[in-house]
Amino acid sequence: MALFVQKFGGSSVADAECMQRVAQRVYDTRAEGHEVVVVLSAMGKTTDNLIQLARQVNAQPDEREMDMLLSTGEQVSVSILAMALHAMGAEAVSLTGPQAGISTDTAHTKAKITDIQPQRIREQLDRGRIVIVCGFQGLTPTHDIATLGRGGSDTTAVALAAALQADRCQIFTDVDGVYTADPRQVPQASKLDCIAYDEMLELASLGAKVLQSRSVEFAKKYHVELEVLTSFDRRPGTIVKDEVTEMEHIIVRGVAADKNQAKVTIQHVPDRPGVAARLFKELAAANVNVDMIVQNVSEKGQTDISFTVPLDEVNRTRTAVDGLIEEIGAAGAFYDVDIAKISIVGVGMRSHSGVAFRMFDALSAHKINVEMISTSEIKISVVIRSAYADQAVQVLHAAFELDKVNEPVS
Amino acid sequence: MALFVQKFGGSSVADAECMQRVAQRVYDTRAEGHEVVVVLSAMGKTTDNLIQLARQVNAQPDEREMDMLLSTGEQVSVSILAMALHAMGAEAVSLTGPQAGISTDTAHTKAKITDIQPQRIREQLDRGRIVIVCGFQGLTPTHDIATLGRGGSDTTAVALAAALQADRCQIFTDVDGVYTADPRQVPQASKLDCIAYDEMLELASLGAKVLQSRSVEFAKKYHVELEVLTSFDRRPGTIVKDEVTEMEHIIVRGVAADKNQAKVTIQHVPDRPGVAARLFKELAAANVNVDMIVQNVSEKGQTDISFTVPLDEVNRTRTAVDGLIEEIGAAGAFYDVDIAKISIVGVGMRSHSGVAFRMFDALSAHKINVEMISTSEIKISVVIRSAYADQAVQVLHAAFELDKVNEPVS
Repeated sequence: MALFVQKFGGSSVADAECMQRVAQRVYDTRAEGHEVVVVLSAMGKTTDNLIQLARQVNAQPDEREMDMLLSTGEQVSVSILAMALHAMGAEAVSLTGPQAGISTDTAHTKAKITDIQPQRIREQLDRGRIVIVCGFQGLTPTHDIATLGRGGSDTTAVALAAALQADRCQIFTDVDGVYTADPRQVPQASKLDCIAYDEMLELASLGAKVLQSRSVEFAKKYHVELEVLTSFDRRPGTIVKDEVTEMEHIIVRGVAADKNQAKVTIQHVPDRPGVAARLFKELAAANVNVDMIVQNVSEKGQTDISFTVPLDEVNRTRTAVDGLIEEIGAAGAFYDVDIAKISIVGVGMRSHSGVAFRMFDALSAHKINVEMISTSEIKISVVIRSAYADQAVQVLHAAFELDKVNEPVS
Repeated sequence: MALFVQKFGGSSVADAECMQRVAQRVYDTRAEGHEVVVVLSAMGKTTDNLIQLARQVNAQPDEREMDMLLSTGEQVSVSILAMALHAMGAEAVSLTGPQAGISTDTAHTKAKITDIQPQRIREQLDRGRIVIVCGFQGLTPTHDIATLGRGGSDTTAVALAAALQADRCQIFTDVDGVYTADPRQVPQASKLDCIAYDEMLELASLGAKVLQSRSVEFAKKYHVELEVLTSFDRRPGTIVKDEVTEMEHIIVRGVAADKNQAKVTIQHVPDRPGVAARLFKELAAANVNVDMIVQNVSEKGQTDISFTVPLDEVNRTRTAVDGLIEEIGAAGAFYDVDIAKISIVGVGMRSHSGVAFRMFDALSAHKINVEMISTSEIKISVVIRSAYADQAVQVLHAAFELDKVNEPVS
């Protein structure tokens, strides 16, 4: 007997019929003799409809009241699933986030879980019941309902799995696992059997929106084994877990393209201490998420600084940078939105040399020019013209034999 | 400065626009310098839609889960009203039943309030805020959400008014007060300025569905002054309060017809101890609400027993009675659905004689035959042919000068 936390969201809980499919899945897991805790998101368009209703009475609704309003969506889901399970003859009980013992801080609409006291869940499991918990919500120290913000239901599931020392946390999504590349870009992309937390984190930050980074970080911190899988069939998904030595046999586990980036270059920046700090302090204050930063070698006491920012933060960046050009004595700035960031990710890079060479070699063989390079221990990213993004991903997928990634390669 | 509890339900909270009208009303009361606690029902068809959703997954949903589901309706209402008040610049905060300190027993879907700890409401009022509470719900000793059943939001309002020692509990409804008769039956019916709890209880049980009996009983027990009024204009409504001597100047405060009754007659019942007890025990077991009971004098050791039951309980009654006819040695039973119960109500009856005479005299003057009579201290009810119901109400309304009821008559 194992303890599973199963999280269903998105299109898995769209309507009553979907709920019955979810109920069957949960029922089957319980029938196999396992204990099951289910975490649910709101059904279908519930959240959107509630937001629309709020906007009708207030253009900028108070965040505490938004949480009061939106938390009802998950409460509807959990009670409906409990009823669907009852109809199948299963014992099941629904709990709100507060009832499940989930405490959060007071940052309404984007709260963080601060503590879980899972006694009530444990007690219901001990009675043989399936326990269904509202995702996305908890109770603040002032006894208000708070929601966790984006991806909150995944975080709820992982946090509950950690608190209950569950054997596995299964995240049911619209896709059936994590792939070596986006299958829309690379038809040969293969589903991974397993992936390390750090690899998943790098891929998530690259726009592989299978799991929210926050829930993966949480899983990593508490060693919760995650499985990403689909509720639409019964195939196993991708396991996200602690890094083990065997994983290093595979050098690169995934390749991803991020086209929602822009490159900013500040020209002829005086090369003296404090100038870069001044620049990035201003960008942080403007809430710009700077990603890759490259500074070329100095020439005549001047240097160019380039960095990438999300496409939708270019205007904020421009406002922050333009006010600084004169102050820091730079020549000017230009903004390039026709770029893509291509990354390869794999814990195997730690123990294999020549990975960067293989990457650049493969790209240059197809005449794809590399404009910026940034590396971490398990990731190499390059900036190229966005027109070549899909081709670059295909080239790299082939170069690192990612279509064979589940058969250990040396 | 007074403390008002204001309850809005039904068509007052149908949609966002209605909510804004309610917000204006609440805002104005606060602007007059009063403290305000608002109690709300679910918006429009929310409850019906949720019930329909539940039915899609389970024909007989578990009651605890139904409460989990339905309680979200009020939670949406309170947060939307808080947002609407914020948009007007008012300070307001919404609370669920449990957050408002409302405890109930564990009778899910028809729970009773067992206790209110209003500290959190008081604290928010002290900060100058309007406090908006979910009607219809509370927390059980096992920390589950329970709903109060029919008319539950009225009960919430009255219970909060009692716990907070509010100066008045205002129940906003679709009608603008309590009338001397149903204005659809009697065009001359006049709105009452005030009415005693007992009178309101008798009228409520007669089908004047302005207030649920349970909330009036609660108000009577805790001496909560109620006002029934409409949210659609600013006229004062009807005050429901403790009986005072002045009220006795008016003999009859209202006349009502109940056409949803049937008369059952058991013929030739042996007149010996225990027979009636046996009959009504069986009816109680069948969950039949017996109202008027009349037993004629015995002839030849036999008697006829007649009683009235709600029309929709006739089938249950028939099943219970038919099984008993032989056992108790009666001749048979017949069921008459073409009747109406006409009642006059007034605390003034206590101190005035001849009221029954005036009633029967008025009816007989119009050739309306009285088939059954039942009296209490403040009410006289008669059963007549249903075809004469409207006429009877008009005749009695005129006979007791109810069109002048707000000008004390001797």
